[in-house]
Amino acid sequence: MLRARVVGSVWSTKRLPEIPSGAFLEVEVEPGTRLIAFDVLGTGIGELVLVSTGSVAAGWFSGQTPPIDALIIGSIDEPTSHE
Amino acid sequence: MLRARVVGSVWSTKRLPEIPSGAFLEVEVEPGTRLIAFDVLGTGIGELVLVSTGSVAAGWFSGQTPPIDALIIGSIDEPTSHE
Amino acid sequence: MLRARVVGSVWSTKRLPEIPSGAFLEVEVEPGTRLIAFDVLGTGIGELVLVSTGSVAAGWFSGQTPPIDALIIGSIDEPTSHE
Amino acid sequence: MLRARVVGSVWSTKRLPEIPSGAFLEVEVEPGTRLIAFDVLGTGIGELVLVSTGSVAAGWFSGQTPPIDALIIGSIDEPTSHE
Amino acid sequence: MLRARVVGSVWSTKRLPEIPSGAFLEVEVEPGTRLIAFDVLGTGIGELVLVSTGSVAAGWFSGQTPPIDALIIGSIDEPTSHE
Repeated sequence: MLRARVVGSVWSTKRLPEIPSGAFLEVEVEPGTRLIAFDVLGTGIGELVLVSTGSVAAGWFSGQTPPIDALIIGSIDEPTSHE
Repeated sequence: MLRARVVGSVWSTKRLPEIPSGAFLEVEVEPGTRLIAFDVLGTGIGELVLVSTGSVAAGWFSGQTPPIDALIIGSIDEPTSHE
Repeated sequence: MLRARVVGSVWSTKRLPEIPSGAFLEVEVEPGTRLIAFDVLGTGIGELVLVSTGSVAAGWFSGQTPPIDALIIGSIDEPTSHE
Repeated sequence: MLRARVVGSVWSTKRLPEIPSGAFLEVEVEPGTRLIAFDVLGTGIGELVLVSTGSVAAGWFSGQTPPIDALIIGSIDEPTSHE
Repeated sequence: MLRARVVGSVWSTKRLPEIPSGAFLEVEVEPGTRLIAFDVLGTGIGELVLVSTGSVAAGWFSGQTPPIDALIIGSIDEPTSHE
């Protein structure tokens, strides 16, 4: 998993209909390295999170797997080493 | 997902017959980092998009999954942090 | 697999309920490159480990695959080349 | 997909028996970044190609999926942006 | 696939029981970039090899797929472009 901080959100009106309910959050893994992760936990901007990437992100959803390749799987309680 | 801007398109006449209907669009994730994503949404050059990569891109297609490893899943309504 | 050293652990109280029993350990692959790997072996901080990433990490778990994309599959007995 | 140019080929006599018929071609994604892609299209050295990576490459083959993680899925007709 | 040279091996006594018979070999893709690949071909140190990564590595094994994300699929007969 990646350890990242939520820095924003994006909206997409024109999109594939198979995208489930949830939010697209922009997360920063390290300065300058960002990606968009899907969130179903109600995560807020500024939170430090764990992000799973690849097919395991899509595999979390029940039914037909959506085209989602990054999922926030939890918020980190406290940093332990850096940051 | 990657946040990227569509910068061009490519055509491939000599290709595997399993490639579905759609367009190969060149997208730029950050200056100097480009990849080719498949598009089924009619996305135009200059649009800011969300790109899913890996097997979830192929898994979106019904029937036998095509050898597509990057798919535009939506256009971003407005940038929220950088760019 | 990645060869990495365990440098810390993270806790996540607010998380997806599908995450199995085990620990989230922060590992360092090389100076400055860290990721969070799931551990079911009772690995301690400071140990040198093998980390498998991607869907094979989730596939190790029996039953429904959890949204885990990095798994410690073993501790390395002795370094053989660098470090 | 990656946009890459074919720069050579490699032969492997001692190999897993599950590798199907085809060629291992070395492709250059950008100066200094090369990988080996499997080719079933009869692609020649110097051609500009689209390469799909990961499990979708293996998934293209019928029957048992071979341990192939990069596949040339087409030749690009003409460059549109750079090169 | 990655083209890499075998530079060492690692042993892991404390490991998941699902890891099959074979060797963990350390390979160098380019100066400074190393990973651990699983070997079932009896590859020796110094050999130039093809490494497949991701779920296709695990998928090569029959029965339940082990948590292996990099597999040596062959030895390269002769270099054709660089090195």
